[in-house]
Amino acid sequence: MDTILKEKAERTVAKLREMGLTFATAESCTGGLTAKLVTDIPGSSEVFCGGIVSYSNSVKQNVLGVSSETLKRHGAVSENTAREMSEGALKICKAGLAVSTTGIAGPGGGSPEKPVGTVCFAISSQNGTESFTKRFESTLSRDEIRRASSAFALDLLYKKACEE
Amino acid sequence: MDTILKEKAERTVAKLREMGLTFATAESCTGGLTAKLVTDIPGSSEVFCGGIVSYSNSVKQNVLGVSSETLKRHGAVSENTAREMSEGALKICKAGLAVSTTGIAGPGGGSPEKPVGTVCFAISSQNGTESFTKRFESTLSRDEIRRASSAFALDLLYKKACEE
Repeated sequence: MDTILKEKAERTVAKLREMGLTFATAESCTGGLTAKLVTDIPGSSEVFCGGIVSYSNSVKQNVLGVSSETLKRHGAVSENTAREMSEGALKICKAGLAVSTTGIAGPGGGSPEKPVGTVCFAISSQNGTESFTKRFESTLSRDEIRRASSAFALDLLYKKACEE
Repeated sequence: MDTILKEKAERTVAKLREMGLTFATAESCTGGLTAKLVTDIPGSSEVFCGGIVSYSNSVKQNVLGVSSETLKRHGAVSENTAREMSEGALKICKAGLAVSTTGIAGPGGGSPEKPVGTVCFAISSQNGTESFTKRFESTLSRDEIRRASSAFALDLLYKKACEE
C-alpha cells in the first residue's frame, strides 16, 4: 500500500506540474496523511500550496468557512460538508484545485446510517465542485481506511487535472 | 523510527488528555506528518483541534497571519516565522497549545547560512511563545529530517503540557 500511495502522489504531483496547476487539501479523517504523502516528494512545493487539517468542527467553521447550518443539518461526515471544505481550502489557499476528505475512520464513531468506513470527498476548481461518498469495508482497520481515503483523494486530483 | 514516532505521538496525546489541553499544528517542512502521526491515534480528536500545512508563503500569510515583513526580513525558515506560525495556529484553531515547524528538508533549498537540515520550531500557549532552531545532519535524508522534526515537535508539545 505504501508503494501504491507513493506512486499515486508522484503521478498526481507530476500531472499538476505538467498542467501548471496548484492545489490545496482540506482533511478531516485523513488528518494530514494526504498532505504528508504529497510533501514526501521533493519539489512538491511547486504545485502544493498547503492544506488544512480540520479535525474539529470549530476549525471546519472558523478556518474553512463551513457553515454551522450545514454541520447541524447534514453532519460533519456528509457531501455537503465535504463541498464546503474543498471550496474553503481553494479560496483561502488561493489554489487551482482543492480536495477534501471527511469520514469515519473508526474504530469508534460509526452509526447505522454512517458506519465506520463512510468517507465523503469533494474536489473544487474555479469551474465548480463535485462530491462523492465511499463506503469502505468496515472490516478495514483505521489505518487502511485512512490510506484508501488518501488514495481516492489523490486520484480525484489527478483526474481533475487531466480534465482542466 | 516509526515505533519511536508512534510512541511519542501516543504519550503526547495521553499527556494533553490528562491535562485537559487541546492543541494545533502549523507545519511547513513536515508537511502534515505531525498531524498524521497524531491522528493515527483513535480518539485524538478529543485533544487535537487541527492544523495548517502552510507550505507556501501565501498560506503562511493569508491563513496563519505571518507578516510579509517577517518573511522578507528573516525568511520562511526562521524562528520569527515559526513564532508567527504557532501563534497564528493557536488563534485560528482556538487551541490551548500550538506547535510549528519550518525548515529545509532537502535535498534542494539549502544555503551556506541555512543548510539542508536547518529547522525552526515554536510552541505557543496563552502564556507566550518559545522558539528553537535545530541543525540536523545534512547527511540525513529528506524523510529522516522530516521525521526528526516531527519527533521534536511532539516532544515540545509534551514538555509544554507538563509545564501548564
